[in-house]
Amino acid sequence: MDQEQLRTLFEQVRDGAMDIDGAMVRMRHMPFEDLGFAKIDHHRALRHGIPEVVFAKGKTAEQVVAIAGKLLENAHNVLITRADGECAAAVTAALAGAEYAPLSGTIRFWRDRTVHGKGRIAVVCAGTSDMPVAEEARITAEVMGNEVETIYDIGVAGIHRLMSNRERLSEARVIVVCAGMEGALPSAVGGLVSCPVIAVPTSVGYGASFHGLAALLGMLNSCASNVTVVNIDNGFGAGYVASLINRV
Amino acid sequence: MDQEQLRTLFEQVRDGAMDIDGAMVRMRHMPFEDLGFAKIDHHRALRHGIPEVVFAKGKTAEQVVAIAGKLLENAHNVLITRADGECAAAVTAALAGAEYAPLSGTIRFWRDRTVHGKGRIAVVCAGTSDMPVAEEARITAEVMGNEVETIYDIGVAGIHRLMSNRERLSEARVIVVCAGMEGALPSAVGGLVSCPVIAVPTSVGYGASFHGLAALLGMLNSCASNVTVVNIDNGFGAGYVASLINRV
Amino acid sequence: MDQEQLRTLFEQVRDGAMDIDGAMVRMRHMPFEDLGFAKIDHHRALRHGIPEVVFAKGKTAEQVVAIAGKLLENAHNVLITRADGECAAAVTAALAGAEYAPLSGTIRFWRDRTVHGKGRIAVVCAGTSDMPVAEEARITAEVMGNEVETIYDIGVAGIHRLMSNRERLSEARVIVVCAGMEGALPSAVGGLVSCPVIAVPTSVGYGASFHGLAALLGMLNSCASNVTVVNIDNGFGAGYVASLINRV
Amino acid sequence: MDQEQLRTLFEQVRDGAMDIDGAMVRMRHMPFEDLGFAKIDHHRALRHGIPEVVFAKGKTAEQVVAIAGKLLENAHNVLITRADGECAAAVTAALAGAEYAPLSGTIRFWRDRTVHGKGRIAVVCAGTSDMPVAEEARITAEVMGNEVETIYDIGVAGIHRLMSNRERLSEARVIVVCAGMEGALPSAVGGLVSCPVIAVPTSVGYGASFHGLAALLGMLNSCASNVTVVNIDNGFGAGYVASLINRV
Amino acid sequence: MDQEQLRTLFEQVRDGAMDIDGAMVRMRHMPFEDLGFAKIDHHRALRHGIPEVVFAKGKTAEQVVAIAGKLLENAHNVLITRADGECAAAVTAALAGAEYAPLSGTIRFWRDRTVHGKGRIAVVCAGTSDMPVAEEARITAEVMGNEVETIYDIGVAGIHRLMSNRERLSEARVIVVCAGMEGALPSAVGGLVSCPVIAVPTSVGYGASFHGLAALLGMLNSCASNVTVVNIDNGFGAGYVASLINRV
Amino acid sequence: MDQEQLRTLFEQVRDGAMDIDGAMVRMRHMPFEDLGFAKIDHHRALRHGIPEVVFAKGKTAEQVVAIAGKLLENAHNVLITRADGECAAAVTAALAGAEYAPLSGTIRFWRDRTVHGKGRIAVVCAGTSDMPVAEEARITAEVMGNEVETIYDIGVAGIHRLMSNRERLSEARVIVVCAGMEGALPSAVGGLVSCPVIAVPTSVGYGASFHGLAALLGMLNSCASNVTVVNIDNGFGAGYVASLINRV
Amino acid sequence: MDQEQLRTLFEQVRDGAMDIDGAMVRMRHMPFEDLGFAKIDHHRALRHGIPEVVFAKGKTAEQVVAIAGKLLENAHNVLITRADGECAAAVTAALAGAEYAPLSGTIRFWRDRTVHGKGRIAVVCAGTSDMPVAEEARITAEVMGNEVETIYDIGVAGIHRLMSNRERLSEARVIVVCAGMEGALPSAVGGLVSCPVIAVPTSVGYGASFHGLAALLGMLNSCASNVTVVNIDNGFGAGYVASLINRV
Amino acid sequence: MDQEQLRTLFEQVRDGAMDIDGAMVRMRHMPFEDLGFAKIDHHRALRHGIPEVVFAKGKTAEQVVAIAGKLLENAHNVLITRADGECAAAVTAALAGAEYAPLSGTIRFWRDRTVHGKGRIAVVCAGTSDMPVAEEARITAEVMGNEVETIYDIGVAGIHRLMSNRERLSEARVIVVCAGMEGALPSAVGGLVSCPVIAVPTSVGYGASFHGLAALLGMLNSCASNVTVVNIDNGFGAGYVASLINRV
Repeated sequence: MDQEQLRTLFEQVRDGAMDIDGAMVRMRHMPFEDLGFAKIDHHRALRHGIPEVVFAKGKTAEQVVAIAGKLLENAHNVLITRADGECAAAVTAALAGAEYAPLSGTIRFWRDRTVHGKGRIAVVCAGTSDMPVAEEARITAEVMGNEVETIYDIGVAGIHRLMSNRERLSEARVIVVCAGMEGALPSAVGGLVSCPVIAVPTSVGYGASFHGLAALLGMLNSCASNVTVVNIDNGFGAGYVASLINRV
Repeated sequence: MDQEQLRTLFEQVRDGAMDIDGAMVRMRHMPFEDLGFAKIDHHRALRHGIPEVVFAKGKTAEQVVAIAGKLLENAHNVLITRADGECAAAVTAALAGAEYAPLSGTIRFWRDRTVHGKGRIAVVCAGTSDMPVAEEARITAEVMGNEVETIYDIGVAGIHRLMSNRERLSEARVIVVCAGMEGALPSAVGGLVSCPVIAVPTSVGYGASFHGLAALLGMLNSCASNVTVVNIDNGFGAGYVASLINRV
Repeated sequence: MDQEQLRTLFEQVRDGAMDIDGAMVRMRHMPFEDLGFAKIDHHRALRHGIPEVVFAKGKTAEQVVAIAGKLLENAHNVLITRADGECAAAVTAALAGAEYAPLSGTIRFWRDRTVHGKGRIAVVCAGTSDMPVAEEARITAEVMGNEVETIYDIGVAGIHRLMSNRERLSEARVIVVCAGMEGALPSAVGGLVSCPVIAVPTSVGYGASFHGLAALLGMLNSCASNVTVVNIDNGFGAGYVASLINRV
Repeated sequence: MDQEQLRTLFEQVRDGAMDIDGAMVRMRHMPFEDLGFAKIDHHRALRHGIPEVVFAKGKTAEQVVAIAGKLLENAHNVLITRADGECAAAVTAALAGAEYAPLSGTIRFWRDRTVHGKGRIAVVCAGTSDMPVAEEARITAEVMGNEVETIYDIGVAGIHRLMSNRERLSEARVIVVCAGMEGALPSAVGGLVSCPVIAVPTSVGYGASFHGLAALLGMLNSCASNVTVVNIDNGFGAGYVASLINRV
Repeated sequence: MDQEQLRTLFEQVRDGAMDIDGAMVRMRHMPFEDLGFAKIDHHRALRHGIPEVVFAKGKTAEQVVAIAGKLLENAHNVLITRADGECAAAVTAALAGAEYAPLSGTIRFWRDRTVHGKGRIAVVCAGTSDMPVAEEARITAEVMGNEVETIYDIGVAGIHRLMSNRERLSEARVIVVCAGMEGALPSAVGGLVSCPVIAVPTSVGYGASFHGLAALLGMLNSCASNVTVVNIDNGFGAGYVASLINRV
Repeated sequence: MDQEQLRTLFEQVRDGAMDIDGAMVRMRHMPFEDLGFAKIDHHRALRHGIPEVVFAKGKTAEQVVAIAGKLLENAHNVLITRADGECAAAVTAALAGAEYAPLSGTIRFWRDRTVHGKGRIAVVCAGTSDMPVAEEARITAEVMGNEVETIYDIGVAGIHRLMSNRERLSEARVIVVCAGMEGALPSAVGGLVSCPVIAVPTSVGYGASFHGLAALLGMLNSCASNVTVVNIDNGFGAGYVASLINRV
Repeated sequence: MDQEQLRTLFEQVRDGAMDIDGAMVRMRHMPFEDLGFAKIDHHRALRHGIPEVVFAKGKTAEQVVAIAGKLLENAHNVLITRADGECAAAVTAALAGAEYAPLSGTIRFWRDRTVHGKGRIAVVCAGTSDMPVAEEARITAEVMGNEVETIYDIGVAGIHRLMSNRERLSEARVIVVCAGMEGALPSAVGGLVSCPVIAVPTSVGYGASFHGLAALLGMLNSCASNVTVVNIDNGFGAGYVASLINRV
Repeated sequence: MDQEQLRTLFEQVRDGAMDIDGAMVRMRHMPFEDLGFAKIDHHRALRHGIPEVVFAKGKTAEQVVAIAGKLLENAHNVLITRADGECAAAVTAALAGAEYAPLSGTIRFWRDRTVHGKGRIAVVCAGTSDMPVAEEARITAEVMGNEVETIYDIGVAGIHRLMSNRERLSEARVIVVCAGMEGALPSAVGGLVSCPVIAVPTSVGYGASFHGLAALLGMLNSCASNVTVVNIDNGFGAGYVASLINRV
């Protein structure tokens, strides 16, 4: 309920076009509907000006199809994350226009391909095993209207590979860096560029990586000042924030 | 060493203006000097186009004075963070133009007050005890050329206070949110606005707050997609990244 | 052994109706019987005035059937929690009156539907994935004789949804709030109402949620003073305590 | 802003007693004022019908005096927690009616001694060292209008002491149990009574107590179903919730 | 190599019955043989005067059969712990006299049933789910020559059940107490008796039990002074040490 | 209240020597008195047949003097642990017979020097820094009536020192082993002897010793089966249990 | 790009054999090629003078075959670690010369068997269950050109077994020690020898071993000064560093 | 007791120069003496061929002086680590030849300056605050007979500084790298060189650095294969192992 609607409401009350009980009901009325198991918030799509997102993990394929179907009535673009093969099969069968990317587990309805981003987003990862997370970030950023460049497999132990990509990195307006194990790549990238860097720790590793904790702590303690961090394996969140930064 | 300098160097070699041994020496020469205990990197200032920063904690007052003095020869603005009273006294006595803010422990040399930011940065905190961290963010953002608005003491347990600031929050281009204890404020703010939110967990709390760990974990798991996180009590980092986002 | 029985025993000794050895045996006699693998405590049912509860996880279907069957001889209502499909099939086949709720994994024998609660209990959850835990709380509260209202999927990132339910929340006498990820919802709810709030962290989330630890720590550090916390995913415990509060 | 005020506002608009701009200003106006460093929320006192509380730790004595002074203009009773001797001296000197309890670090302004509680609250602790936390709970519950009974130093290793207090425990309407080290007392108490038990882990102990973590985990895993938990050393929170339960 | 053998060796050297090189070889010769994948230490059996033990987890059924077969050549009694059904089938088929107890996963060769213990060992557990660990302790203590009494399912939340077993507990010479969840039972038992209590945390529980960590910490912080602790789920170790104490 | 007293009570009721109300009062009467801040349990001393113990940390010197004075009225021997110099001065000034050992912070009233132990207790430590904990164990075991032998500074990195003490270790009836850092000494000692070994992790170390956590975990995972563990720095507990084992 | 190549490049520019644009391209050209999903770095093989290594876990069998095939074009020896049976079958079918060791999960292409090591590397493990990790270290060290001696199953609880291998240990030039549970073996070995010891914690154990954390912490706190540590289960890393040390 | 001495002993027994009881006593006699509070192990010095080391923390100045004085009777070089100013004053006053380095807290008696190392050791640190740890490594390596080169303040966020030192790093035979915060420097250095790298996490940082834990985990998960790790702040250990590697 924005200022305009509120002003209109007061005017209707003043002019007698609406009685007080009706006004009070209107005040409590919010623009979402109820599917029974989840309140879909179209309002949120309006507020953010971005696609609707469904987190598929922990939901049945039927639930995902129902939610996505409902969302597609109002939103041009819909992104489903953490979808397994069974979920993807159900969505693809039920809803037209679904693009499934198995590596990252994303399903994308990309009907409005307008570019909103002002510059280019670079998505970087340290090793081959980090690619699912990086791909989730790339696909998110694309469906939110950005040009994305990927630079994969440039870990800090082979620093000349990083250096050889310095120019491409410098041209990005915001960079997403995914890394597991020691999670050192965001610091190294952050020191090379002057734009914001969004670090994504991945759960890649074993033993004392503690499922991404080592990378997470490393990134939070980055000595590069232009680094912020999102949750372990949260490629979606990184792509999302990168998109917001790229459109401000 | 940028592309221009490299090209010039090759041209000098081609033209005989420089012999090969000299060229190889030039290749290794980097623009930093050596104070004995710390290599000051003027290059970094050029690269980022932003003030030099000194992290005072763990350094003697003499070291801070020496480093800051050297930096002030090349940089317009210098920011010293985590300075205690003794350090501040030494810096103020030795170097003209120092502004000490005891609450946040920052010392600022703010000689070039050009505004670089395109919009306004909001700095928000949950409780009075979070103010030192929020102030570090504010001062950092200011010295980096931004207009900053502060909205303090609006925790989630008094959600109407948050709601009453909704408009001011919506007008910001990027928001820094500092909170200790359960660290829920960034999620609540993130759900109200569409701009990037940088969350700063603070070490405010006791018992199971574990010196900011509870707030940190809460922020990393935020259900608002526009939230990224920096280290516990890292107001400087949040102000820094907010400035970068505000100038892209 | 309560005061009445003790007094009676002394009177019998005084009156010669019982000899001393018999009295000492009586003193040690407690009202529970032995099934071989678990001592069933009917006494407990009398003491609390509430249904008997069986925690099915870690027990075989046969053990659950045997324990529940024994309990049903003395108790009107019996609640089985954490039952999987195999256990439910065995219980349903063996014992009349079983109601299985697969989402929460509860089996309920609800023979005495007297309402003991003085007001209404609200059960709230942040997201669709938190529903199994919330349902366990709801079913527990119902079988303990309470009127329960559920308000699902109102996370803090969509705070207007929370606000639009403010009135319903205010009418509850005690509220159970289930949330995973950052676990911020209990603080937000706690700030809106003046009744006791029982927070249930759920293991919903990934990465730095650490299987519910982030939500647990967040709730323990709640800045709302009316919040207490139970174990991760312990919907039963929350429903149980809410029932106790509602009948005092 | 409650329903009554809102209805009145609409009526004024309808009747022309207020113009629309004024109405919109009123809508945004919330009942708190600004001291510069903290927004005092008188509204909260009205909402909860309970005393205002100031958490003194992390605030200067001057700040505490200023906040408490302001609160006393509107509230009958004010409770200051975590106050050290210096703070207490400043408050006592500046504001009439302050009662300082050094053991728990609380300062109480107890001007309205109306009893709101319907029954008695028992505050129990395991050892002498847990008394500061227990006392904070007692003082909080008293200032909120409850009759409080204390039962101190009854740890589980001397279980006959616990048993000898069984009757007194059974007569309470809600029980607060404070324990450090292994934190087993709430389970033992919870098994003896049928009322709600609020467990407060204390930081008493050494080594593997990890500053209260052992007690906290023990209480969260209590095998007694009537136990909920608050933060380590949070005697205030326990007394607060106990008071809410005792008045429903 | 004990003192007797050493003295004999010196005598042989003195008497010329052995030359010096031979003596030095003898010095290095230790009484164990090599199966290729594990050095079996008959010496250890002699040293401790107790059965040989094989930890089956992480070994193939073939390895367990081979090791146990070799041990049975020299030891009267052999205990295999953490054996699954497949391992038990292989051992039972290959080696005569094997007794498999599926609940605890132990296989016992109990050929010498001499009683070594001076008193009785009590094995206690808090809940039905703790029985596998308690049974491992019981079987270990029995095969080491002790009379064992089991008292199962007497958790602290039903403290009268504990009290009703006080006499039996008091008659034991050493007590093993197994408990998961909050792990409070060893403290309660320890306070009732004056003999040594060996506490075994079990991994029974969920959520904040963290796979036995809560119980482990609780037991380490026991306020009863007669409690020592072994590893989570280590029923064998508890039965082993109880046996040693019972024979000193 | 033991069986004898109970039988006597019943006899008095039967014989009319006591009325029923008096009997019920007697039943509730337990043998402890109330000092106001701590219930002193003389009963415990009777039950264990061992000295009374006061944990001084967290108590004021006055409290310690009062408790110890009261205890000395009924107990021959009293042990005060974790006493600092100020506490020791107060106790020594107020109560005759106090022996203060500053290294371990223990104060001992050792009036009854009867030897109860059947064999010798060895107290072993890995390094010089572990001596305070080892001394607390030694003093505890002595005051409980044991002959104690100390073997200090024999860490596993100098394994020949351990081996050279093998004979002395073998002659002990129970061994206390104190070690910080990696906490490996109990395993090595446990492998050399056949008697029970009580392991005490100490907080000696730095960095990843995490205040004794590394040693604690190491000891809990000991590959020697005769090792049990007490809390970090709990020399008292180890000496206490060793004494119990030595007298069974 | 080494100094020689750089000098040659400058000479070509000086002599006109290469123009400036070509030189700048050369400067950026690094010796790795792109397979699409991973940048293979032949350069690294040249730099280290050692085999190429493929970490198979998290890669498909097809990816491993493709990477290994490409590497074999340039490298004599290739080592694949963490390969399961399916991966091994695919590699063996596709590429000649593969040797699969199922226990450690390594696949080795060992075409150049030149010995580079100056002395012998000893690989030691504490128990049978640690052998997979130890074997990974052995196979790594062998393929890197070292003579390796294995000494398995010599845990600290049977210290005479360790002592009986003292001579063999003393003859090694560097020692790899693998141990789970309490991880004490590296300290004991380190105290016996004067050469560098590389400690590998293994995830062997249960309960409070926390998947190798106990062993890891123990090794980091070793009281033997010649011990360094690698990640949990990282037999490869230990064999790799041992090889580097053995060839310096 | 080495092989020579043992052979001599046997010869004496054979030749009748020593009787058997005497021989057995000699067998048990180890070459250390007893100062009362610490067994000094001259044997260790012989075994390692390196200086004696005293860890001063946790010892009184008097203890350090006594131990060091005793050691200096037999060892040329003695190193005291973790000495504060008071300790240094006492040592310098009592013992000739002491060199105190306050930054690292080391005291060095460097009487034999023979160079044993075959190459050069590089000691590298990331920031100025890491210098105390790096200096401890440098001083240790020097007193053990090595030529040491220090390269300080080259963190990964300024990667060109690291690259500009590539040549000096490549010339080292072993490298010690000290870094706090995210601890990424060892990986970056490890990728540039082919020699062994010893990583030392430092406790430099704040918040989520958790006193060096973040750096420790990062280093354990290094993607560079030539990195091993020592304890947090353990500059001594790193310098020690580097010296061993440099002399093999």
